[in-house]
Amino acid sequence: MKGFAMKKIGSVGWIEKEKPTIGPNDALVKPTAISPCTSDVHTIWAGAIGERTDMILGHEAVGIVEEVGELVKDFKKGDRVICAAITPDWNSIEAQGGFAMHSGGMLAGWKFSNFKDGVFAEYFHVNDADGNLALIPDEIDDVAATMVCDMMPTGFHGVELADVQYGDNVLVIGIGPVGLMAVAGATLRGAAQIYAVGSRPNCIELAKEYGATEIINYKNGSIEDQIMNLTNGKGVDKVIIAGGDNDTFATAIKVLKPGGIIGNVNYLGEGEFVKIPRIEWGVGMGHKTIAGGLMPGGRRRMEKLLGIVKAGRIDPSKLVTHKFEGFEHVEEALFLMKDKPSNLIKPIVIIK
Amino acid sequence: MKGFAMKKIGSVGWIEKEKPTIGPNDALVKPTAISPCTSDVHTIWAGAIGERTDMILGHEAVGIVEEVGELVKDFKKGDRVICAAITPDWNSIEAQGGFAMHSGGMLAGWKFSNFKDGVFAEYFHVNDADGNLALIPDEIDDVAATMVCDMMPTGFHGVELADVQYGDNVLVIGIGPVGLMAVAGATLRGAAQIYAVGSRPNCIELAKEYGATEIINYKNGSIEDQIMNLTNGKGVDKVIIAGGDNDTFATAIKVLKPGGIIGNVNYLGEGEFVKIPRIEWGVGMGHKTIAGGLMPGGRRRMEKLLGIVKAGRIDPSKLVTHKFEGFEHVEEALFLMKDKPSNLIKPIVIIK
Amino acid sequence: MKGFAMKKIGSVGWIEKEKPTIGPNDALVKPTAISPCTSDVHTIWAGAIGERTDMILGHEAVGIVEEVGELVKDFKKGDRVICAAITPDWNSIEAQGGFAMHSGGMLAGWKFSNFKDGVFAEYFHVNDADGNLALIPDEIDDVAATMVCDMMPTGFHGVELADVQYGDNVLVIGIGPVGLMAVAGATLRGAAQIYAVGSRPNCIELAKEYGATEIINYKNGSIEDQIMNLTNGKGVDKVIIAGGDNDTFATAIKVLKPGGIIGNVNYLGEGEFVKIPRIEWGVGMGHKTIAGGLMPGGRRRMEKLLGIVKAGRIDPSKLVTHKFEGFEHVEEALFLMKDKPSNLIKPIVIIK
Amino acid sequence: MKGFAMKKIGSVGWIEKEKPTIGPNDALVKPTAISPCTSDVHTIWAGAIGERTDMILGHEAVGIVEEVGELVKDFKKGDRVICAAITPDWNSIEAQGGFAMHSGGMLAGWKFSNFKDGVFAEYFHVNDADGNLALIPDEIDDVAATMVCDMMPTGFHGVELADVQYGDNVLVIGIGPVGLMAVAGATLRGAAQIYAVGSRPNCIELAKEYGATEIINYKNGSIEDQIMNLTNGKGVDKVIIAGGDNDTFATAIKVLKPGGIIGNVNYLGEGEFVKIPRIEWGVGMGHKTIAGGLMPGGRRRMEKLLGIVKAGRIDPSKLVTHKFEGFEHVEEALFLMKDKPSNLIKPIVIIK
Repeated sequence: MKGFAMKKIGSVGWIEKEKPTIGPNDALVKPTAISPCTSDVHTIWAGAIGERTDMILGHEAVGIVEEVGELVKDFKKGDRVICAAITPDWNSIEAQGGFAMHSGGMLAGWKFSNFKDGVFAEYFHVNDADGNLALIPDEIDDVAATMVCDMMPTGFHGVELADVQYGDNVLVIGIGPVGLMAVAGATLRGAAQIYAVGSRPNCIELAKEYGATEIINYKNGSIEDQIMNLTNGKGVDKVIIAGGDNDTFATAIKVLKPGGIIGNVNYLGEGEFVKIPRIEWGVGMGHKTIAGGLMPGGRRRMEKLLGIVKAGRIDPSKLVTHKFEGFEHVEEALFLMKDKPSNLIKPIVIIK
Repeated sequence: MKGFAMKKIGSVGWIEKEKPTIGPNDALVKPTAISPCTSDVHTIWAGAIGERTDMILGHEAVGIVEEVGELVKDFKKGDRVICAAITPDWNSIEAQGGFAMHSGGMLAGWKFSNFKDGVFAEYFHVNDADGNLALIPDEIDDVAATMVCDMMPTGFHGVELADVQYGDNVLVIGIGPVGLMAVAGATLRGAAQIYAVGSRPNCIELAKEYGATEIINYKNGSIEDQIMNLTNGKGVDKVIIAGGDNDTFATAIKVLKPGGIIGNVNYLGEGEFVKIPRIEWGVGMGHKTIAGGLMPGGRRRMEKLLGIVKAGRIDPSKLVTHKFEGFEHVEEALFLMKDKPSNLIKPIVIIK
Repeated sequence: MKGFAMKKIGSVGWIEKEKPTIGPNDALVKPTAISPCTSDVHTIWAGAIGERTDMILGHEAVGIVEEVGELVKDFKKGDRVICAAITPDWNSIEAQGGFAMHSGGMLAGWKFSNFKDGVFAEYFHVNDADGNLALIPDEIDDVAATMVCDMMPTGFHGVELADVQYGDNVLVIGIGPVGLMAVAGATLRGAAQIYAVGSRPNCIELAKEYGATEIINYKNGSIEDQIMNLTNGKGVDKVIIAGGDNDTFATAIKVLKPGGIIGNVNYLGEGEFVKIPRIEWGVGMGHKTIAGGLMPGGRRRMEKLLGIVKAGRIDPSKLVTHKFEGFEHVEEALFLMKDKPSNLIKPIVIIK
Repeated sequence: MKGFAMKKIGSVGWIEKEKPTIGPNDALVKPTAISPCTSDVHTIWAGAIGERTDMILGHEAVGIVEEVGELVKDFKKGDRVICAAITPDWNSIEAQGGFAMHSGGMLAGWKFSNFKDGVFAEYFHVNDADGNLALIPDEIDDVAATMVCDMMPTGFHGVELADVQYGDNVLVIGIGPVGLMAVAGATLRGAAQIYAVGSRPNCIELAKEYGATEIINYKNGSIEDQIMNLTNGKGVDKVIIAGGDNDTFATAIKVLKPGGIIGNVNYLGEGEFVKIPRIEWGVGMGHKTIAGGLMPGGRRRMEKLLGIVKAGRIDPSKLVTHKFEGFEHVEEALFLMKDKPSNLIKPIVIIK
């Protein structure tokens, strides 16, 4: 079969591979919509996860079940399904402890385009199909559904990590597609004021639509100063980090109230240390909790998020600014993600 | 001063009383908007809390601070304030343990028109003003603010008790004003499907506006049957009870999934026992948790909920179907609450 | 192979069956120690789970792995293992949501001697071996380990359901083997006073050894009166129910403080309703939460509890009052459990 | 009255001051036992909280109520009481949100020998007496009770921050008096293995007595190496930091499993940043939560912890290695704390 692959660090292209074989618990899926992710870009051009050879890329796809293993109970050939970017081993110790995304080791629930071939192929392999696939309701089209593979669960997990409660004032740093979903997720957890940090016009517009009440543009001064002004010096209850770098945490600590929580879902690609300012962290005793985690995957999570979309609470398809028709356009979509034109939020490729 | 009072069980009328005196931590407030509550009706005509003599009624009011005690730091004469229906003693053991509403004994945080005079008077007394008053933002008018005294916090607390999470399917039983706020609160906690039980047209309409996806009308069969049909026999993740009676719990248990939670905020006025069906409760081992509690009061809670209103997430003033101008109309408003005409959701009286 | 079975309701005996066959994810275990449980007695003589024909009994066993399926990674023939009484399907929706014990339906994680043959046989079948087996540390003998299959996890789960916190005063109702483990578990969660309800001398002695500070004997008056006297009328913070019947809940509600929790792990065998007294339950608003649930099973749980035993925090083998050598004694051990002589807490049968 | 004071940074001595006057909600207490704390040493000789002039030192004391304000309900002259080192304003927004220790600003619940005179005086002032005093049960002597002012609540809070659960393997870094209480607290939350880092013989001995299963001595290699060896490369579930410095966090992150939590209760006295190693922190997505906080104070907390002591679960008086009789010895006790002879854990001064 054909797949679009990372040939080595810095190099991509089309390759031919054997169609994956499946075990008794697994499934084979034929994608109908796929989307490249910033982490594909990190993987290829920054070498973020190390060298890979002829590894098929991609971890955001919806599709049609082609084949299932003999022990799979709930899915069959022809089902229209979603598979999360993270596909845990559900009988692992880690999953039993509530951290399925780290089954088999830290971050090891991230298998697609990391430990095995990804979804930018004619077919892709899904481990533990009963645990990792979910049916897509008829009401939800492929575009919206594809945004539920990674963007929506990652953004929403930031809200969960920050444990947003009714009436919390929340700062969301970064309003790329994940940050935008964090804004929407904070709205859907009862946040009061949502301060969103960003500067690109279409992201700002969508942030407001998803519930941001104020936009913080770094061009207007430091984030700290702007937040402290807007909150009469009180700071915010919670911070969600969906962009920036290691230094973003110092900003977050400074504007966070005692008893507050930082929920990070940003992939930190460089630098040796995240540095927490000692004084503003209450000399270790300020109850400013720092949390960060990979999004949860799995069937139940997908069903829950699709349920939110189906009920009309949110339309994640608004993230999609560039839409291609035909598998061959995946390369173009990926380079778009790399080059980030100013009007891009998220591209998608519809396959046939 | 003049007040509208319960003279004894079954009898109400205008009385004259001394203006309350305040201690060092207290405040005196002059109401500008008041609203009668179903529990006023229970108190007077059902004798729900026992005999009371010449007790001024009412626990939903916003107003202007008239006077504060010498130790009050954050409020002063002239401030436009809200006071929750529940006014805890914040230094009590119970408050320190997170259950301020039961400070001094079960339900004893409910002081207005229960253990002391209520708010249907020219002035009302607020214990621990720094802990129990909150400033009303200019953007919020008295009508909306008055709905934050009891309706919104009670409905939202049902959602908290049921611990609604992203994508949960939720049943809300009862769509009077509290149930409607529970619907809105479930929406603002990320519920997927919200099934709302009710039959009055204007309540149904408002339930849909606040986020209900399906209306369950008891005239169309049992709630159990309807829910099990709508959920393909799976039942719901959470139930919020905001109406009905003791028997409502049996229904809730039957439609609840294992691992689910019932959050009750309905005042159970009669009957010796709430009866939990043993088999459907998993012979005691089904992880169907039954929770119920009085709404939290206090300044922080009021500030948080006002923040949600200010951010435009919800408009609680939609609950108000009948609006009176002039303190003298409180009697009319109260009898409206007693008689419940079919178009009533909630009345309000604007003073001055 | 030989097994000791329920032939039909009210009748037990030895039967011959085919050795179970295993699938790719499963294991076959040869038991080395087994213990009958009160629920075996309910199953046989009260018909608690309905009619069963020639179903092998038992769900508490440790043993040696005889064979594993081709996909099993972490266990091999010859391993000394424990398997919990509850063996969930770990890739189920329910497990993903934190309620593995209800995978496949309410209580359906309980498979042994319920939906499939139990452990009183020459060999028993374990579904999802990687998820449901655990190695037994050398320091722990078979007697102690067998008490970790069901008694210790069930008792400790009562403590978790009641969410015992540092300094809580806790009432444990019932001090059979599960209640005794609840006492020990409450001690190991930092309870202050532990009031244990029971009357049999050896249970009382062991309850004190496991941490009970006061024994409540129903012969000395009602539990309510005794608890209210001992607590100066304040009641307790938490109640764990590990014995009694439907009416026990009324007692628990009456002595529970607002904000308290009841954690039930008692199998409720009869009666239509558990009745919650309305007034003492705070007319639905007293924040007295009622929780009840089947113990969690699975590998991680077993490893955690074995870790506690290995660290010397608790010796669960003290529960064993009657020890038999030889598989043939399982019948005698079971009838002991049925007849409950006054000196019995828990029997065990060592095989070979 | 006489008090032992910090005259300025680096200088201490006896001073005369007016006896404090009390407001309507306050109390005046005459200490009967006091204990200096490492933070007194930081305050005086490291200038940790900045310059202070003639400020009476000390925040660990038990004593006898001398006088109460007119609004104090539950205490009276002659009562034998404890007061926590942290004395929150219970009607503050922060306390209502569950973070009373930060009432009035980050760390501002710490008033004694920080924002007001401390307890090393003939009398000390207690704000909000009903919320901040607790009666000492007759069974508990002054020595044990004084250890409940700060050592036990701080150590136990480390366990709460790390959210230790049944069977967790826990690393406790630092076994001074607070670390020793963290060891005891982890035992009383059901930890399995407890690895305690320290090197002083009497601390090691007491750590074992309080439940440590292994001692990690930095003289035998790095903590990381030792822990990874002892855990077969898996690391620990939770880490409690009760000693060390900013760099201790890097160690903690490295040995912590994904899904784990660090609970810090160590006062970080120097350095600009706490540095979190990016890679080992899972590039921001490893679910290794970093929490740290000032101990909770207040009456309820004191009652709960005294309840644990009264029930015989723990004897905190074992911390006391040096006992003085007579108020005049406070200076000697403080210098002992400064000089830290190898046999010191905690000194106490009994008054009269």
